[in-house]
Amino acid sequence: MILSPSKTVATDHALLLWQDTYRHRVDAAVQAALSDLEKTAYAPLLEAMRYAALGGKRWRALLLYATVASLDPDDTLKADAVADAPAAALELIHAYSLVHDDLPCMDNDAMRRGKPSCHIRFGETVALLAGDALQSAAFGLVAKSAMTDPAKACAILADAIGVGGMAGGQGIDMNASVHGQPRGNIDEALNALETMHRMKTGALIRASMALGMLCVPSPQCKPIARQNLMMFGDRLGLAFQIADDILDATASSDTLGKTAGKDEAQHKVTYVSLLGLEGAKRQLNLMKDELAALTQSLGGAALMLRALADTMLNRAQF
Amino acid sequence: MILSPSKTVATDHALLLWQDTYRHRVDAAVQAALSDLEKTAYAPLLEAMRYAALGGKRWRALLLYATVASLDPDDTLKADAVADAPAAALELIHAYSLVHDDLPCMDNDAMRRGKPSCHIRFGETVALLAGDALQSAAFGLVAKSAMTDPAKACAILADAIGVGGMAGGQGIDMNASVHGQPRGNIDEALNALETMHRMKTGALIRASMALGMLCVPSPQCKPIARQNLMMFGDRLGLAFQIADDILDATASSDTLGKTAGKDEAQHKVTYVSLLGLEGAKRQLNLMKDELAALTQSLGGAALMLRALADTMLNRAQF
Repeated sequence: MILSPSKTVATDHALLLWQDTYRHRVDAAVQAALSDLEKTAYAPLLEAMRYAALGGKRWRALLLYATVASLDPDDTLKADAVADAPAAALELIHAYSLVHDDLPCMDNDAMRRGKPSCHIRFGETVALLAGDALQSAAFGLVAKSAMTDPAKACAILADAIGVGGMAGGQGIDMNASVHGQPRGNIDEALNALETMHRMKTGALIRASMALGMLCVPSPQCKPIARQNLMMFGDRLGLAFQIADDILDATASSDTLGKTAGKDEAQHKVTYVSLLGLEGAKRQLNLMKDELAALTQSLGGAALMLRALADTMLNRAQF
Repeated sequence: MILSPSKTVATDHALLLWQDTYRHRVDAAVQAALSDLEKTAYAPLLEAMRYAALGGKRWRALLLYATVASLDPDDTLKADAVADAPAAALELIHAYSLVHDDLPCMDNDAMRRGKPSCHIRFGETVALLAGDALQSAAFGLVAKSAMTDPAKACAILADAIGVGGMAGGQGIDMNASVHGQPRGNIDEALNALETMHRMKTGALIRASMALGMLCVPSPQCKPIARQNLMMFGDRLGLAFQIADDILDATASSDTLGKTAGKDEAQHKVTYVSLLGLEGAKRQLNLMKDELAALTQSLGGAALMLRALADTMLNRAQF
């Protein structure tokens, strides 16, 4: 749907191969980053961090690499090498957020990525500290990276995951599940849901693309590309969340690798609860069209980015 | 003891005034930093962050300002202005660590800085997220600062508080309190205790001084001063912990602003449990002598730094 009509099966295959290649690449970067900490680390805590940082679909890292590719840098090998550190950092941040989200005082989830969640495996104390240390490790990686402006990259990351981003969005989400939903009409409810998701998951997705732009020399990242990429990230973040809500309502726990159907069990407001399953699917398709229109402007080098969005939004059959 | 014999009552008074002045200064910097987040923040979470970041003795921030002063920068006003952001960041990090340490799955402490701890006041969910967001905010502050190398400053901070620093040290501490103390002779036990404290509290104290050095233009921070300052920070961190153990064993909760006597109640290994109260006091005095000898090399501009160490190690009568 997002891909241009001229795509072929061979192209499809090549694009999925690209995703696999870079998924392995960021896995290696994550392992290397954690191994670098071994010399000074308290080993049992590092073990819990490794456990939490393993697996996952690596969407955020792939978005970063695809953003780099979309800018068609003069030196691709170098740009990819620069991208490894922030790509790994994004996955450490994502892992930290999952570890803390799964804790009993938050979503209280015993299963994650098809295995016991971190606090089930290591206890709450270690899980809490592992999440804390994963956040620090991510900033350390970005700060020591060869990006064009590592300090700016740290600032982008901090804004994306703090009280105005991921942590704030999770706060809004938890508050709603404890104190019930704010009253209002459907438009107000949809706006509130959108705001929450823009902070909770959208901010880190946008940051993935913003950090990608800092992996190529500044002159190679034109203002118009910058603007289009950020808009793409914003819409993708929301579409991704709609797809996630649909998945939670329709897929099995086995497929998800985490507890399915928990949104409904917790009476959460989701796109599915507000719009119904069919309505949510329609909304997702509208967003896909928006993304398709937007990606026209990104040029041929954005092929991987467009394909990645397609994969992310079609990751299960619905 | 650390101050030179030539000090006078008037000098003493001036030095304490200096501490008060800069304590107010960092309080204002913390407030300003949190207010800067208002526009995008989820307000109830920001409120909990403010609550947690208020109060405290601000030792880490004062150490940073005193380090700046000890380097006798050509433009004092400018250096102090640059120092505000990292000074506030250190206090946000310290606040985050206290919020998480007080949680039920960690030290389970209901009282902090003379008031209910963050999770007692706001609930565990909000407290967990407030700690997370305080950490992010600290990195954001440093990353956006006017320090000579903000990326390097972020890297120093990340190493100081991660799995090889504060979080790792807290992990060791918690593990000991759950699984009992490692067996061994008194020397081994003292070594293990020292390693834990070097990570848990020492690393952030050393980082306070390392960040201070990044607040003045590089040529104004000579290698010899750099080395002496880092050694000073290392010894001060340990001495501070011995003083803390003595305080816990001797002071009242009212004086401390947190629950006193909890080390003994939790059967923790401390300098007091290993060396006895008198032995710990003797050890502290030895460390003070070491600090005094070390500070000779730091020159006249280190007056505030020496006085600050004195205040930190004598903060209650024992």
